[in-house]
Amino acid sequence: MKAFMDKDFLLDNEPARFMFEAADKMPIFDWHCHLSPKEIYENNQPENIAQLWLGGDHYKWRAMRSFGIDEKYITGDASPFEKFQAFASAMPYLIGNPMYHWVHLELQRYFDIYDTLSKETAEDIWNRANAKIAAGGFTPRELILKSNVTCLFTTDDPADTLEYHKLLAADKSFACKVLPAFRPDKSLYIDLDSFIPWLNSLETVSETKIDSYKKLKAVLLDRIELFRSMGCRASDHAFAYVPCEEATAEELEAIFAKGKNGEKLTTLEVDKYKTDLMRFFAAKYSKLGWAMEIHIGAMRNNNTLMFNKLGPDAGYDSIDDKEIAVPLSRFLDSLAVKEQLPKTILFTLNPKDNYVLGAMLGNFQNSEAASKIQFGSAWWFNDNLDGMREQMKALANLGVLGKFVGMVTDSRSFLSYPRHEYFRRILCGLMGDMVESGLYPYDKERLSEIACGVSYNNAKEYFGI
Amino acid sequence: MKAFMDKDFLLDNEPARFMFEAADKMPIFDWHCHLSPKEIYENNQPENIAQLWLGGDHYKWRAMRSFGIDEKYITGDASPFEKFQAFASAMPYLIGNPMYHWVHLELQRYFDIYDTLSKETAEDIWNRANAKIAAGGFTPRELILKSNVTCLFTTDDPADTLEYHKLLAADKSFACKVLPAFRPDKSLYIDLDSFIPWLNSLETVSETKIDSYKKLKAVLLDRIELFRSMGCRASDHAFAYVPCEEATAEELEAIFAKGKNGEKLTTLEVDKYKTDLMRFFAAKYSKLGWAMEIHIGAMRNNNTLMFNKLGPDAGYDSIDDKEIAVPLSRFLDSLAVKEQLPKTILFTLNPKDNYVLGAMLGNFQNSEAASKIQFGSAWWFNDNLDGMREQMKALANLGVLGKFVGMVTDSRSFLSYPRHEYFRRILCGLMGDMVESGLYPYDKERLSEIACGVSYNNAKEYFGI
Amino acid sequence: MKAFMDKDFLLDNEPARFMFEAADKMPIFDWHCHLSPKEIYENNQPENIAQLWLGGDHYKWRAMRSFGIDEKYITGDASPFEKFQAFASAMPYLIGNPMYHWVHLELQRYFDIYDTLSKETAEDIWNRANAKIAAGGFTPRELILKSNVTCLFTTDDPADTLEYHKLLAADKSFACKVLPAFRPDKSLYIDLDSFIPWLNSLETVSETKIDSYKKLKAVLLDRIELFRSMGCRASDHAFAYVPCEEATAEELEAIFAKGKNGEKLTTLEVDKYKTDLMRFFAAKYSKLGWAMEIHIGAMRNNNTLMFNKLGPDAGYDSIDDKEIAVPLSRFLDSLAVKEQLPKTILFTLNPKDNYVLGAMLGNFQNSEAASKIQFGSAWWFNDNLDGMREQMKALANLGVLGKFVGMVTDSRSFLSYPRHEYFRRILCGLMGDMVESGLYPYDKERLSEIACGVSYNNAKEYFGI
Repeated sequence: MKAFMDKDFLLDNEPARFMFEAADKMPIFDWHCHLSPKEIYENNQPENIAQLWLGGDHYKWRAMRSFGIDEKYITGDASPFEKFQAFASAMPYLIGNPMYHWVHLELQRYFDIYDTLSKETAEDIWNRANAKIAAGGFTPRELILKSNVTCLFTTDDPADTLEYHKLLAADKSFACKVLPAFRPDKSLYIDLDSFIPWLNSLETVSETKIDSYKKLKAVLLDRIELFRSMGCRASDHAFAYVPCEEATAEELEAIFAKGKNGEKLTTLEVDKYKTDLMRFFAAKYSKLGWAMEIHIGAMRNNNTLMFNKLGPDAGYDSIDDKEIAVPLSRFLDSLAVKEQLPKTILFTLNPKDNYVLGAMLGNFQNSEAASKIQFGSAWWFNDNLDGMREQMKALANLGVLGKFVGMVTDSRSFLSYPRHEYFRRILCGLMGDMVESGLYPYDKERLSEIACGVSYNNAKEYFGI
Repeated sequence: MKAFMDKDFLLDNEPARFMFEAADKMPIFDWHCHLSPKEIYENNQPENIAQLWLGGDHYKWRAMRSFGIDEKYITGDASPFEKFQAFASAMPYLIGNPMYHWVHLELQRYFDIYDTLSKETAEDIWNRANAKIAAGGFTPRELILKSNVTCLFTTDDPADTLEYHKLLAADKSFACKVLPAFRPDKSLYIDLDSFIPWLNSLETVSETKIDSYKKLKAVLLDRIELFRSMGCRASDHAFAYVPCEEATAEELEAIFAKGKNGEKLTTLEVDKYKTDLMRFFAAKYSKLGWAMEIHIGAMRNNNTLMFNKLGPDAGYDSIDDKEIAVPLSRFLDSLAVKEQLPKTILFTLNPKDNYVLGAMLGNFQNSEAASKIQFGSAWWFNDNLDGMREQMKALANLGVLGKFVGMVTDSRSFLSYPRHEYFRRILCGLMGDMVESGLYPYDKERLSEIACGVSYNNAKEYFGI
Repeated sequence: MKAFMDKDFLLDNEPARFMFEAADKMPIFDWHCHLSPKEIYENNQPENIAQLWLGGDHYKWRAMRSFGIDEKYITGDASPFEKFQAFASAMPYLIGNPMYHWVHLELQRYFDIYDTLSKETAEDIWNRANAKIAAGGFTPRELILKSNVTCLFTTDDPADTLEYHKLLAADKSFACKVLPAFRPDKSLYIDLDSFIPWLNSLETVSETKIDSYKKLKAVLLDRIELFRSMGCRASDHAFAYVPCEEATAEELEAIFAKGKNGEKLTTLEVDKYKTDLMRFFAAKYSKLGWAMEIHIGAMRNNNTLMFNKLGPDAGYDSIDDKEIAVPLSRFLDSLAVKEQLPKTILFTLNPKDNYVLGAMLGNFQNSEAASKIQFGSAWWFNDNLDGMREQMKALANLGVLGKFVGMVTDSRSFLSYPRHEYFRRILCGLMGDMVESGLYPYDKERLSEIACGVSYNNAKEYFGI
């Protein structure tokens, strides 16, 4: 029996351990996360482990609700220690859940605590962890540097001023590059309540009256230029499915006008608008050499009662299951045929799409980059041992695992970097199993190159950082 | 090499064996099956193993047809021994099929026969098994008690009188609780030929003229009250997809009138009717504390030729593949927003939906129960080694495996209880592998608690039995 | 650690090795491939390994593009050695890709080369392989015979004259039967640009004016008779989804007329036409005892830019994700109810459909053949270690693995026969694991019978060859 989560965690043979030794030394390039540049800039001392762990992490809230814990101890007015206790009480029942591993990796790596968290150990761990925090080293920047992160991409709205990115860029004392990524979802979701307020905020920040679709595009180009000037190298987009519907310029202006006036739009109208605006973005990304990240398959805010209480990103999101293959293919093709398809990274939230996406990549690969079209790492509900293995096996079977750009935390938490370690262990475990079983030669140099490539170097080269 | 299906069957390491030792001692609470309360009450002596095994088990019929056996030896006029022989001849080719394990578990546990079934051993096993049956201990009640079943839920139509449940409840000599579960599918399937005859039978049993949708609801409330009075704690519903379409009271009356008159209904009309009636049921279940079981994704009676000969449940059912996420989410949300969402158990017949359902649970969890929304165990075509592992891994990754309400036989056979043993071995095997690999600590007390919880205690608590 | 791809490749225990020893001795019956009967007849000496490997293999092209190789070195004007070098440079990064195993199996079996292919070894392997080729034994017929292939089915259009099949049949010196399979896709795809040219070619070859749908059917019956006379035993059809839409004779004539005139057809019209013509074909196959192969889920020619340069089958195909269950079931049922359902083999390109198809089989099995309805082996993007295991596990769980008709190369390459060896190793590995784990008895005779059955005998019996 292997010891619980020791140095050989997830590394079951010598080749796996050999590869991980190399991969573990690589820095982290976290090219997709939801960290707040403001928090990084302000760099405040956290109060306690409850704040760090339970302050905004909807993964943990969801697990607590699933255990039957009252909302009072999740987002309610219970004390931080009560919340921590409640969370600890659920832990042992989360056998097989990635949170069980994340929590213990974070305890080990940041707090030097090797006990397991449970109702019984909650108070002791609370005290020891908080003493550690009080002793220092737990501000955002300290955690980032301790985790050996050399570069990270936040996700930012076109209407954002990027003021904290500017401040961070000006602060030469902080060794990690914090770059914006362009996430114009609110410009695309013309049918959501957020559209008109967003348009107003864009008018304000751009000091421009946006009275036509044409004008909107012009302003968005200016915002892209701002992002570019701040070192942006990537965009991000979220869709239940990527649409592909043709429309004339007149139609698009009419749709925009309806959206701006808050009129009801049909699904087809919305899809026409999204298609055109996405093509516009993609063509620009292609010119700039940016990567286009597309996240497919989330179904958000499923619980209206709780949405009205807590707002979005509170743990009430889920997996959609639409047909995605045909429109996605047509959309990418419509760009490729004009040689306007940028580097693209396709993520799916529904594992039924793993083989659809893995095969889709191959339709649009060319020599502009090694694996120009990438299959994004196992996302959100798939970000676990099984999901990561399945995503990597699909990619290996259908594409070139050796050129994979690898892991991102996709997280709001400054303690989430051990997810890169988790990923690297799983990657090395997967390849180690192949070597151990005689499916791949034990060529140490090559294996080490691939492990370090997928862990860090491939992404560095792909994004040109 | 491990011996074939010996005491360590599916238990590959010490932690797995330790957990199973505890789990194996737990009684069985079979909260979803298709046993006949009449047969339990009448408690007849079976004639031979062919009657027990092949009399009504469409799983076995299907396997025999797939082997190329003539219908004469399946549902035709061949002798019981000929049918048994034919079945035995197919067995060795069913390598990797759960039936191979079910058959041999049943031979071992009920007949003390440790040989493998094949054409060659058929006659000997026939003789020995029938001698055992003749010697006694094989009536429905004896099999139930021998299997350590303390409670079981049958599935019953609202038009059912529950007379056998009454008789069983009155018979204090039988230690197993036999409770009805409310399965009003025929009330929901307004578009099927079964609707009008069913409505007539409901009118008869209720002695009420049901001339409006409103009246139908009133009568159904009375039937629910009857079920409640007989100890019912659960309902059950089957859908290709769970619909969610809004309608006015007038529309619903008009749809009901059309259905009652045998007029053709559109899919949208049917979905509106089903949505409203399901909400009506769910609100009532919520008040009563009943669990709402929803079985998604069956496609029934695919072979018209054989349906005309043999009727339903004859082995001609299959797996549907519709999009289910959005309407299911909206349906559950429409209840949750009114605080009328009962405890709910979601089953799927299509494994592509495992992650959709596993994630869906989390949208509606709260402190009303530990894992109030449950992911039902691997159902029907998934009720096998791979399917059970996949369902439990999805649940573990997305929810709280430790609070899973576990296995049901879903069976028409009194010999099917070893499926609980099969499930428990797989559960303990899965968790044992985690411990063995260092993914979970070897905390014997907790592991034992979880294994016994999933095997029995969680369901007992969840259903309040 | 096991040695890399040695004699025990994929055979991890004694039962697996025992079974493979038997299976490996079986001949190959490759009942679905895309070899050219002309090339087999002409039997030309290949020039070099680049021609054999890279001349037309879009799997390899796709892998090269995914590695970032310029099209010049794929389908462009680089020299054969440059192309071979480029391909070799990508190899080590294809860890986990089936091509890594195919390439090394082919090097081992045909070239006696046991080194691994990479940039570093490319020149040496190029020289040794080409010396082998020059020394003889690498013509199409020699490779077929060396691979122990006793029978193969090509795929042929109804408008084909089958002249090379006639020549091959007349040549008694070649021991392998080369039989046509009937692939009338172009007759079904009335909405594609290929329809009118195809119709013209059919008019020419049949010397008949096809001015009605009725006439088309009459001509197709003649072509089927030609195929039958040449020993054909199977047909093949490709669909994104199998449609099932009813139409009158008049409607069908009108649809045909529109198609013949190049008028735009609706999806519904196309589906009506396909449904009727497929039923017509199937009824005929049923009479003739032919098997009907149906390949579901391909999405072809996704890259218009490259299609315009290279045409079809150039590595730009992908996986569709439509709902397939209901119309497929209705289509098969509409044949079964008239007792016109032929032996049928269902393939899917989307692994989400594995359980849908595996369950679908059981709806239509009867005693006309052992597993009359077959689940085709893991196809194309699934033709890898994981895909084959998943397909066989789905089949084992839902049907009768022991009666599976097994592997086909589905290939255009004369070097692709080791894929049968790969399949057999995976099959024996899978069953060996079951025996090793105590899930199936170590009954050597039966296991050997099943392994040889799935490898060769089942298909021989199924197709009546």
